[in-house]
Amino acid sequence: MPKVVIVGSLALDDVKTPFGEAKSALGGSATFASLACSLFSEAGIVGVVGDDFPKEHLELFKSKGIDTSGIEIKSGEKTFHWEGEYSHDLNTAITKKTDLNVLETFNPKLSEEFRDADFLFLGNIDPELQLSVLSQMKKRPGLVIADTMNLWIDIKREKVLEVVKKVDLILMNDGEARQLFNTSNLVKAAKEILKLDSKIAIIKKGEHGCIMFSGGKHFACAGYPLENVKDPTGSGDSFGGSLIGYLAKTNDFNEENMRKALVYASCVASFNAEGFSVEKLKTLTMQDVESRYKEFEEFVKF
Amino acid sequence: MPKVVIVGSLALDDVKTPFGEAKSALGGSATFASLACSLFSEAGIVGVVGDDFPKEHLELFKSKGIDTSGIEIKSGEKTFHWEGEYSHDLNTAITKKTDLNVLETFNPKLSEEFRDADFLFLGNIDPELQLSVLSQMKKRPGLVIADTMNLWIDIKREKVLEVVKKVDLILMNDGEARQLFNTSNLVKAAKEILKLDSKIAIIKKGEHGCIMFSGGKHFACAGYPLENVKDPTGSGDSFGGSLIGYLAKTNDFNEENMRKALVYASCVASFNAEGFSVEKLKTLTMQDVESRYKEFEEFVKF
Repeated sequence: MPKVVIVGSLALDDVKTPFGEAKSALGGSATFASLACSLFSEAGIVGVVGDDFPKEHLELFKSKGIDTSGIEIKSGEKTFHWEGEYSHDLNTAITKKTDLNVLETFNPKLSEEFRDADFLFLGNIDPELQLSVLSQMKKRPGLVIADTMNLWIDIKREKVLEVVKKVDLILMNDGEARQLFNTSNLVKAAKEILKLDSKIAIIKKGEHGCIMFSGGKHFACAGYPLENVKDPTGSGDSFGGSLIGYLAKTNDFNEENMRKALVYASCVASFNAEGFSVEKLKTLTMQDVESRYKEFEEFVKF
Repeated sequence: MPKVVIVGSLALDDVKTPFGEAKSALGGSATFASLACSLFSEAGIVGVVGDDFPKEHLELFKSKGIDTSGIEIKSGEKTFHWEGEYSHDLNTAITKKTDLNVLETFNPKLSEEFRDADFLFLGNIDPELQLSVLSQMKKRPGLVIADTMNLWIDIKREKVLEVVKKVDLILMNDGEARQLFNTSNLVKAAKEILKLDSKIAIIKKGEHGCIMFSGGKHFACAGYPLENVKDPTGSGDSFGGSLIGYLAKTNDFNEENMRKALVYASCVASFNAEGFSVEKLKTLTMQDVESRYKEFEEFVKF
């Protein structure tokens, strides 16, 4: 049984940035999250693809010890497709096209085994599906983390708020937090999250790092100063996947260990942005991550 | 003789933010920088005002031990006036009106005494005036810090680059650095600054903190998570003034002490944003600053 169950999208993306482009490349929130998670803990994916989804991608997951038994393959249908572009400001993606395809009728059904998992990551996907997955668990997992995006805040705000209420830790980026709580101030937004019973709020700020709020404490984590960003797609998902992977591995949710988890997650997310699609996550090792963690310690200390 | 000579603007500002407004309030780069500097070291201002400049402002400077002998008062003329507004995103000011008034013909002449200063802060002002002040110094000061803004990059790019070349440490915000070197990447922009012979580059990122690059090292300093920002006007100048003030006091430019200087500067800058105009700097004490510094240590450690 995988320690961490990850639900989210599996996609074939077309991405263009000022530094190149990728066509029909492996993407999706569950993809990045599970590959990142697999550096720390065994992951299992819950998702759906069409029969156009290349076998080699499934093989990649398996090679990382990721349980793919929860990936439904719908014959005669096409995999979710996202087309996006980043301008010089690599912080924001401009969506050019979204073909939901198999995602349109996706209705995740967790296996007996998956319903028993101790760690659950609700990757960026329709909040109703996130809630459905959560309700299928046999017992409350030790830790439930959810991620979301502006699209869901626009069209399903109430459901996003319900997710926030039901999970232990919610991840969102700064723009999303500002949008959801209608405030420019991130400290205020984080306090609103905590009022909704989410024990921990983590706000991701792209290249500027992230902040974590919990029980009156806050942690400000700088961003790793990357010189060669190629494609930030999936860095937020990689961040989330590493976070839950590290926490599953250490099983310690104290402030001190949570902070370490955030730094590890930032390191993995920064690696991800240095290549297109899963190019970097494919070959990334814990040795690489540990070495960047040490660098991180060096450049924030004073 | 003041330890730190600060050249910059003295202004009467109209500022509006979502949290209130101030009319004809004390502002200008030299104002914020000298008040912030005075927490750490004796400062002397080089600037110009009209005879509409309230005496109480000069008294405020004097009460902080600031040498005002370098402030020229032009009778029959009006003080520089800036009108700005901040929307919900408090990171960027929208300039509504700029009346240069006395600044139009400002031609700073340093006194014998000021020309001997060990520390020089070239606050945000026309880069030609910054260069003129630098050329008036009898000897090369121990440390020269310059600040700039997007306006000068737009209209006097070559002069800004000349300033960068001639000073030890250049301060700019992230948008300005991206604009000056035509790159979205701050690490690349910082490297360009260092190529121009500026020994240290500090890029301010507003609420996201700042980064410092020097001799192959970088330091990432998180922003202090403020819940009640009222008016960010002058926070960048307060940052610069505190920075040179702390460095003048400690006279130690090693990486370790530079990092401390940046954290002190961030603390003072964050206080400044909690009130309109100089409201906060007026009453701020070193005890307040030390206490925020300790908080800062707590929330970035991992």
